[in-house]
Amino acid sequence: MDPALRDLVATGPLCHLTTLNPDGSPQVTVVWVGADGEDLVTAHLPHNQKVRNMERDPRVVLSFLGPDEPGAFLQPYAVVRARATVTPSDEAWDVLDLLTKTYRGPDVTFPAPRAPGFVVRYTIERVGGIGPWAS
Amino acid sequence: MDPALRDLVATGPLCHLTTLNPDGSPQVTVVWVGADGEDLVTAHLPHNQKVRNMERDPRVVLSFLGPDEPGAFLQPYAVVRARATVTPSDEAWDVLDLLTKTYRGPDVTFPAPRAPGFVVRYTIERVGGIGPWAS
Repeated sequence: MDPALRDLVATGPLCHLTTLNPDGSPQVTVVWVGADGEDLVTAHLPHNQKVRNMERDPRVVLSFLGPDEPGAFLQPYAVVRARATVTPSDEAWDVLDLLTKTYRGPDVTFPAPRAPGFVVRYTIERVGGIGPWAS
Repeated sequence: MDPALRDLVATGPLCHLTTLNPDGSPQVTVVWVGADGEDLVTAHLPHNQKVRNMERDPRVVLSFLGPDEPGAFLQPYAVVRARATVTPSDEAWDVLDLLTKTYRGPDVTFPAPRAPGFVVRYTIERVGGIGPWAS
């Protein structure tokens, strides 16, 4: 993974996750995302629409803003085109708790009851947008 | 348009615009968006991929963050499902210049040379996300 993209993800940017509905229309939710090796990772407790969408069609986009830079006209942002792999997992809560440390503070615990869920790994295909991570 | 959504748009939130590529995969870019009557509006000078995508398939999503609220666990955000109507227009630059006032300051002029382009109106179908604008 591009080091600039890894650094950006480590700051905890809120991520717009686009999946595809059964009728081909786009579906967007905002999620927390982490980096693990060469992949991006999210976790989910319910078997909700976005999880079902990714099980059926792995084509997704994850997009998030970079820091606004003084004097710049356009704010940096990353658009990551990726293929999603959904895995039912007993560790979904643990991933969410780890992301809570990044997104809400080192001493904050993920507030939902511990439960099995789904971990999604994203194999990066292309990174665009505006910034040093854009190829 | 829901007044809370109108107020949010007036703050100049950077908007993730999802369109559909010819192969059905999602395409995302970050754009400036305004409100006009019941519709959302964007403008573009080049006839780029997102404009061509919307001419072919009007199904889009516009998503953007609301202000982070002290003590809240999840940051508010809006997901607007809409149908796009693309119109070639001599006023695209003027729309971009107007949006520049919101996004970059009341005394800032849009820096690209004046040229014809495309104005896109979005007929809102459903508003989701987290916040008072979510139905």
